Amino acid sequence: MKAKKENFSEWYTEVLQESGLSDYTKVSGCIVFRPYSFAIWEKLVAEVDKRFKKIGIKNCYFPLLIPKNLLEKEVEHFKGFAPEVAWVTKTGGSDLDEHLAIRPTSEVIMYDSYAKWIRSHRDLPLRLNQWVNVVRWEFKHPTPFLRTREFLFNEGHTVFATKKEAEAESKQILDIYQDVQENYLALPGIRGKKSDKEKFAGAEYSLTFEHILPDKKAIQGPDFHHDGQNFSKMFKIQFLDQNEKMQFAYQNTFAITTRQIGIMVATHGDDKGLVLPPKIAPTQVIIIPIYDNKSKKQVLAKAKEMQEFLSDFRVEIDNREGYTPGWKFHDAELKGIPLRVEIGPRDLANKTVVLARRDTGEKKEIKLNKLGKEVPAKLDAIQKNLFDKAKKFLDESIHEANNMDALKIILNTEKGFVRAGWCGSRACEDDVKDKTGAKITNMPFGLKAKGKCVDCGKPAKFVAHFAKSY
Amino acid sequence: MKAKKENFSEWYTEVLQESGLSDYTKVSGCIVFRPYSFAIWEKLVAEVDKRFKKIGIKNCYFPLLIPKNLLEKEVEHFKGFAPEVAWVTKTGGSDLDEHLAIRPTSEVIMYDSYAKWIRSHRDLPLRLNQWVNVVRWEFKHPTPFLRTREFLFNEGHTVFATKKEAEAESKQILDIYQDVQENYLALPGIRGKKSDKEKFAGAEYSLTFEHILPDKKAIQGPDFHHDGQNFSKMFKIQFLDQNEKMQFAYQNTFAITTRQIGIMVATHGDDKGLVLPPKIAPTQVIIIPIYDNKSKKQVLAKAKEMQEFLSDFRVEIDNREGYTPGWKFHDAELKGIPLRVEIGPRDLANKTVVLARRDTGEKKEIKLNKLGKEVPAKLDAIQKNLFDKAKKFLDESIHEANNMDALKIILNTEKGFVRAGWCGSRACEDDVKDKTGAKITNMPFGLKAKGKCVDCGKPAKFVAHFAKSY
Repeated sequence: MKAKKENFSEWYTEVLQESGLSDYTKVSGCIVFRPYSFAIWEKLVAEVDKRFKKIGIKNCYFPLLIPKNLLEKEVEHFKGFAPEVAWVTKTGGSDLDEHLAIRPTSEVIMYDSYAKWIRSHRDLPLRLNQWVNVVRWEFKHPTPFLRTREFLFNEGHTVFATKKEAEAESKQILDIYQDVQENYLALPGIRGKKSDKEKFAGAEYSLTFEHILPDKKAIQGPDFHHDGQNFSKMFKIQFLDQNEKMQFAYQNTFAITTRQIGIMVATHGDDKGLVLPPKIAPTQVIIIPIYDNKSKKQVLAKAKEMQEFLSDFRVEIDNREGYTPGWKFHDAELKGIPLRVEIGPRDLANKTVVLARRDTGEKKEIKLNKLGKEVPAKLDAIQKNLFDKAKKFLDESIHEANNMDALKIILNTEKGFVRAGWCGSRACEDDVKDKTGAKITNMPFGLKAKGKCVDCGKPAKFVAHFAKSY
Repeated sequence: MKAKKENFSEWYTEVLQESGLSDYTKVSGCIVFRPYSFAIWEKLVAEVDKRFKKIGIKNCYFPLLIPKNLLEKEVEHFKGFAPEVAWVTKTGGSDLDEHLAIRPTSEVIMYDSYAKWIRSHRDLPLRLNQWVNVVRWEFKHPTPFLRTREFLFNEGHTVFATKKEAEAESKQILDIYQDVQENYLALPGIRGKKSDKEKFAGAEYSLTFEHILPDKKAIQGPDFHHDGQNFSKMFKIQFLDQNEKMQFAYQNTFAITTRQIGIMVATHGDDKGLVLPPKIAPTQVIIIPIYDNKSKKQVLAKAKEMQEFLSDFRVEIDNREGYTPGWKFHDAELKGIPLRVEIGPRDLANKTVVLARRDTGEKKEIKLNKLGKEVPAKLDAIQKNLFDKAKKFLDESIHEANNMDALKIILNTEKGFVRAGWCGSRACEDDVKDKTGAKITNMPFGLKAKGKCVDCGKPAKFVAHFAKSY
C-alpha cells in the first residue's frame, strides 16, 4: 500500500480497492458499492432516518425521470443543473417526444405534486424525505465516493406556513447530521453559511458542513438550503391561512450523501488500510483463532463461545482454512476492523486473550473474565480517539490571514482553511479565486466579523473560510 | 367510492387516490409512492431484508446505467428487455458515444464485476442483493403499483459452485417471500414453475407465486430464476475448483417488487376503502376521542394514556381540530386502519372503550382494563381473517378442465385459474393462447400429471394453470 502522507490520492484509490469497499465499473465515473461499503451506508441511513422520523419527517418515493419542461420551470435551478443532466431521449426503438432528465435532485418533480396536495394551513407543515440515487454527469475528475456521477443521498423537501418555522428547521436537521457524523463516522465538520455565489441553485441561502481531507483540501459535507418562496411562487405552492388569505409557502431542502463514506475513509485510514470507527464498522470485533491440529477444536469452540458472549456487538470469527494467523491479522487491518481478539492454545490454558486495537496498534493480554468489560471500553476508546484526532487535524488546518499576501502564503504552504475578513462583495470573492484558486467554503457560525476584507481592505462584514477544495 | 364488485378497476384507482397511497405524476406510467404506501414498502423491505441477511445474503449497490454493449452480451436477455429500455443518449448538451440503458434489471452490470471478483471456489458462494429502482418502459396500460414504468424491487444475484447448491437456494428464497407475503401482507399465492415460454429472459427456469385479483384475472408475484450457466459462460464467471480445475459457476436471481402493494390493496380493500393487514399497516390502532368542551381535556388525556399503554403497537390519536368523530371514522376506514378505539365522556365514567374492527365492522364495548389483552387479540384475529378470506377466494378461483370446451367456458364465465393437463409443447401452449387469450401462469408444485393435454389430447406431462392475466 502507498504511504498515505506521501501520496494521498494514490493511497485513497488503493485502499478502496484493496479493502473491498468499492470497485470501478464499465460506466465512467460510477462505482460499485460493494457489500462492505454498502453496510456502512445502511448504518448511516438507519441512524439519520430514525432521527428524521422522530421529528416528524416521512419517507416517500418520487419518479426517477423528470420531464424537461418541468425541470426548466425554475430558471436558476435549471441553469445550475442542466450541464450535468443525463437525458433519456429514446425508449425501446422510439424517440421520446419530450426528453426526460434522470433526477439530479428532485425539487421540481416533488413540488409539482406538492402544489396539488397543499390547499390549507392544515396541510402544513409537509415534511417529506426520500433516500434515492441521483445522477449528475460532472466532468470534473471522478473519485470514488467523493465525486461520482451517480451517488446515493437523502433529499428532504419540507414546506412550512411561515419563514420562521421553515428557518427553525435548519437547527434540527444540522444537529441530526452533526450527531451522526460525529458520533458514528467520528467526523468533525465546520458548520456555516455559504456565500451567495456558492449556494444551491434555487436557494435563498445554504448551510453546510465543510470537512478537510488529508491533503489539506476542503470538501463539502451535508447541507441544508432555505429556499424561501422561490419554488413555491414558481410552482404555486399556496395555502389558505387561518384568516382565509392565500399565501405562498416557505421551503427547505437538505441532504447527506455517500460522499461521507469517502471522507471518513480518507480521514481515519492509515498505511495499513482502513480504520473504521466502531459505531459504524460492519464488524466491530474480529476473533482470530490460532491453533495447530491438536488444539483446533478447543480453540474454535472457545472462539464461538466468545462470539456468543459478545452478542451485543458485531463480532466475526475468521475461521477460514488455508490462511495463516499473520495473513488474517493483515486482512483485518486492511479492512479497518476496530478490535482484534487473538486466542490460541496458550490462552486457553491461561484463561487469557490478546486484544489489539486497530487505531493505535496497542496489544494487551487480558484475563478472559474481563472480556465483557474490556471490549466495550476499548471500542469506546477507539471511537473517541478517532474523533479527537480528526478534530485536532481539522482545528490545526484552520489558519488566519489579515491580508492577501498572508492568504496566498498559507494557501501555498500549510493549505487548509484560511479564516479571513470579507466585505461580502462578489467582486472580492471572485478576485480571491482568480488570484489564489481558493473559494469561500463557508462562513462559520458563531464568529463575529472584525478587521478588514482580505481583498479590498474595506471593513469586513463576515468572517469567511477560504480554501482550495474538491 | 365505486363499488368494488361492480367495477374493480375504477374502484382500485379511486381507492389509491382517496386513501393517499399514491398519486399520478407528469411522467407517464410513473407514480408517487406517497408516505402511506412507502411506509408499507419499508416494512415489507425490512422483513424480507432481515431474512435475507440471516441466510447470508449481503446488500450492495451497482450503477443505474448500463452501457449498451454490455446489455447486448446475453442475446436472449437483451431481446427480452430491449423493447422496454429507456436510453440515455445525451448528457448536458453533448451526445454520448455509447448509449446507456437505465437498468431494467442488473444481471449484466453485476456479472461483469462478478467475473473479476470470482477466482476460486473459496470466493463462492457469492450472494448479493440490491434494493433499487428499475425502469421498464412498457406499452401495456400502466396501473399504479401493478404495472408502472418505474418500480422498486429487490434483485438477488447469487453464484454457486454447483448446480445442486444453486437450486437448493430456491426453497430458501421462496419460503422467505411466502412467509412475508402470507404473514404480513395476508396474501396467499400459488407457488409453481413457469413454462419455458413464460420464463425470465436468460433463465434456465423460473419459479413464481401467482395471485388472483378481484376481477378473477391472474397476476404474477415474486419470482426466482435459476440461470444455470447461461450468464456465467457469457460473462466468464469461472473459478478454480478444489481439484484446480476451471469451472463455470451456477447462478440464480430473484425479486419481489412494489407490485405486491397493489395486489394487497386489491385483495383486501372494500367499498369503504383500504383494509390493511395489521402486521403491515403503518398505523395499527387509531384512537378517536369524542368530546365536548367540558370533557375535552379529560378525554384527550385518557387517549394519550392509552396510546402510551399500547406502545408495543403502532397507535395514533386522531386529535385533529375541526373534524367530527363521524368524519374521522370514515377517514380511518378509508385508510384501512385495522382497529379503531372510540373513547368519550360516557366511557370515562364507565371505564370502557369501544373497539371497532375494520375488516368485519364489528363494534364491541370493552372494559378499559381489558385493553391490553383485547387489542393484540383483535389484531391477530383481523390478520388471520384477512388471510383466510383471501385464501378462500384464491382456492375458489381454481377450476379444473379436461378439454378445450370446458377450458373456454370457465375462462368466459367463472374465470380465474383453470387447472388442466398439458403435454409440455409450445405449440399447445400457443394454441390455447390463440383460442382463449389465456396463458400458462405456472405449473403448481406438488401436483402429479394425469389424464390428457387439454389442447392436443396426448398424455399430459404437467398440470398447468391457464389464466387470463395482467
